[in-house]
Amino acid sequence: MASPAPQPAPSSALLRELATLLDAPGLQTGDAIETRFRKDWYAPLGAVPPLAVVRARNTQDVAAVLALCHRLRQPVVPQGGLTGLAGAATPEGGELVLSLERMRGVEEIDAQAGTMTVMAGTTLQAAQEAARAAGWLLAVDLGARGSCQIGGNIATNAGGNRVIRYGMMRDQVLGLEAVLADGTVVSSLNKMQKNNAGYDVRQLFIGSEGTLGVITRAVLRLAPLPSATQTALCALATYDDVVRLLRHAQRKLSGRLSAFEVMWADFYGLVTTRVPGVRAPLPAGHPFYVLLDLQGNDASQDAPVFESMLESAMEAGLIQDAAVASSHKEAQSFWQLRDAVAEFPVMWSPNAAYDVSLPIGRIGEFAETLRTRLLAVWPHAEPVNFGHVGDSNLHVSVYLPGATDLDFPEHEISDVMYGVVREFKGSVSAEHGIGFHKKPYLHCSRTPQELGLMRLIKRALDPHNILSPGRVFDLD
Amino acid sequence: MASPAPQPAPSSALLRELATLLDAPGLQTGDAIETRFRKDWYAPLGAVPPLAVVRARNTQDVAAVLALCHRLRQPVVPQGGLTGLAGAATPEGGELVLSLERMRGVEEIDAQAGTMTVMAGTTLQAAQEAARAAGWLLAVDLGARGSCQIGGNIATNAGGNRVIRYGMMRDQVLGLEAVLADGTVVSSLNKMQKNNAGYDVRQLFIGSEGTLGVITRAVLRLAPLPSATQTALCALATYDDVVRLLRHAQRKLSGRLSAFEVMWADFYGLVTTRVPGVRAPLPAGHPFYVLLDLQGNDASQDAPVFESMLESAMEAGLIQDAAVASSHKEAQSFWQLRDAVAEFPVMWSPNAAYDVSLPIGRIGEFAETLRTRLLAVWPHAEPVNFGHVGDSNLHVSVYLPGATDLDFPEHEISDVMYGVVREFKGSVSAEHGIGFHKKPYLHCSRTPQELGLMRLIKRALDPHNILSPGRVFDLD
Repeated sequence: MASPAPQPAPSSALLRELATLLDAPGLQTGDAIETRFRKDWYAPLGAVPPLAVVRARNTQDVAAVLALCHRLRQPVVPQGGLTGLAGAATPEGGELVLSLERMRGVEEIDAQAGTMTVMAGTTLQAAQEAARAAGWLLAVDLGARGSCQIGGNIATNAGGNRVIRYGMMRDQVLGLEAVLADGTVVSSLNKMQKNNAGYDVRQLFIGSEGTLGVITRAVLRLAPLPSATQTALCALATYDDVVRLLRHAQRKLSGRLSAFEVMWADFYGLVTTRVPGVRAPLPAGHPFYVLLDLQGNDASQDAPVFESMLESAMEAGLIQDAAVASSHKEAQSFWQLRDAVAEFPVMWSPNAAYDVSLPIGRIGEFAETLRTRLLAVWPHAEPVNFGHVGDSNLHVSVYLPGATDLDFPEHEISDVMYGVVREFKGSVSAEHGIGFHKKPYLHCSRTPQELGLMRLIKRALDPHNILSPGRVFDLD
Repeated sequence: MASPAPQPAPSSALLRELATLLDAPGLQTGDAIETRFRKDWYAPLGAVPPLAVVRARNTQDVAAVLALCHRLRQPVVPQGGLTGLAGAATPEGGELVLSLERMRGVEEIDAQAGTMTVMAGTTLQAAQEAARAAGWLLAVDLGARGSCQIGGNIATNAGGNRVIRYGMMRDQVLGLEAVLADGTVVSSLNKMQKNNAGYDVRQLFIGSEGTLGVITRAVLRLAPLPSATQTALCALATYDDVVRLLRHAQRKLSGRLSAFEVMWADFYGLVTTRVPGVRAPLPAGHPFYVLLDLQGNDASQDAPVFESMLESAMEAGLIQDAAVASSHKEAQSFWQLRDAVAEFPVMWSPNAAYDVSLPIGRIGEFAETLRTRLLAVWPHAEPVNFGHVGDSNLHVSVYLPGATDLDFPEHEISDVMYGVVREFKGSVSAEHGIGFHKKPYLHCSRTPQELGLMRLIKRALDPHNILSPGRVFDLD
């Protein structure tokens, strides 16, 4: 199947046809294009504006626009809340932006099935709040909840803080409606937990970053809403102890461990001394800190279980010190340590931020190896390590004191980083995706055969390569 | 992309080449073909034997055989433990059987990562036992555990009794090695919980019933091994109460509800009066019975939580009666009720057995509607209802007293059954798959667009249609 490089369509014909398909608020062209559609969070503003912005009202609009673009070979970039960190939704010059922001709302909560049917443009927070109001938990949660949209969460297979208990976005999606590159609407709005009727076509679209179809609607799994949380911060001496504590807590709390966030000494020292308003519940100087919680339904039953888990960990020498939150407010102050990461781009700019995953047992050694390699090149580099270690996910932020935007060697740092990821058989992206930013490094985590299979799928579903071309991988 | 009907290859050339690729125990032809390779559990023996049986030693054998078959357009049927219930692994005349049974063994248990790397031909039970010996739980479990193989469990996305807590086989697969139709080995042996580095190519093979590739190896997620189980049998008055008890138990046991099996009065009456050795822990005559359990790690903590959950359900009027197992032995006797289903094909033959799924809130109404429709045609029909209702999965067994193998109207019963499934927006297969048996009914649960997408994927991955042709759906 041929896959020619996308050719710019005769744009006047395209714009004329779009104008007949859409209502007035549904199409922005030329100077009327709002700047907000021109970039996602970490991407610079594209040099050339997109050809136009379509703000679809419904699935029919999406289908009509894609059928037209397929016919005219017009590249299209679907956009959700524009909070992505890999640049996939930032349009290149000449591309058509397809925004889902007008397609928002919770269509149904089925309290018996434990499902929620949501339009793709609904913000995560709006969906979470609707679930909560009906007595349920929509379990995926992340910092951008107020802006990010369900469609984007699915297209990027979002992760966040609760993956250890509830899985990633993929695990919340029971049903999906998506529009293929040629405008075919594939409606697979399944509400069942089990459905082995043929291939699971949902899976194609989840995590494909807008390159295989445009997600328009989803049926999401809801979880029972927990009503009581126990939170602790622990200090540990070695990374091996971190892993032993993880397994100890999973066993003792059977099914209720709901977060296991690890902060290396470098991270803890930085946020407790330099981020305003963040207090240190435990003294600095320990090699590792673990923030963990149990979510359950009855504090009087859960608190003794949680404390006994911590006591036995301390008796076994896994923990050097621990602080248990005595109130919701104190638990929130523990979480401020972890959430201080939101300040990093502001306080330590320029820096290079990474989202990698590694086999859990090797993350400690990985962080040490990386530090050694970085310091060998940049003796003053400050790598800062933290992450969802219970999910095999490490975030690393690398700061070079004195560097400026003009001379910050981001590519060279990335080369070192992803070289070590490859050695440790890790992934260059745990949860943020590939987009444009990590495309040059995808081969560090994927074999030529895996990449060949990805290209085969892309060519089959989007033969003219109109959907988010150039994201994730190149075709040739 | 053209997809011609598979043409039989010049078989002498094929057999000659196979003999050079394989060792002596690796190839059976003609009269030397063992009968066991000619059928899976519920399929009749094919009229014509397969062309040959290949018993691969390793992934290289699989790759070489598939490359050859791709070149010669030779249809191939991969076989696991032959315990499938949809007939997908039963060879048609002229097909080549590719057995994975020699590729068995647990290659690694990574206790820090919480993963197990297993060859495809390993039985589920051998993998479970290896996990348990290392202090872990491989959470998928089903009756055929002693015979079924991990590769087949993955290819059919197996379910079973613990899905409500741990998910299906799909949810246990972290990494996969599979061989494509043309012999390309796609090795994606990821150990991480999170990996968003490009498309999730694992998903293509899980649940595709041998039609998209041959699974040779997998990395499976392990769970903490529970050490204490609380089990109860409850009697309920209405299906609405069943759903309310499900949600009540999920909330109260937060994360530890590990089974929720429902038996309708028809099922309970039958197994307690007619299956030898099955006793009735509660009197017959209640409309519904629920068998549920909590798996945890400390009986002294768990038992009061479990009993308080049951007490509050009784106070709220959800439960009419309940029996709590006071010992492991008693819990096993409760489970004998549910496991008595294994006797159905023996004691009530012929019967038609179904594995459907429906939105949880509608299963009660579905069962009533189905009964009414069946009795309208066959006034003496005896439909028997039971299932993993917590996972939206209903099993129905239909017996017609007096019917024989010669006049049992299985197709007519299936037409009624799947017609009602379609009305209720259910799935014709919750966990057993489609294979040959349910292919005529796949359209009851899938739209033409979904089927078109499945065909597109099949054509892209297997352009000569050599892998399990004719299973799941036809290409034209």
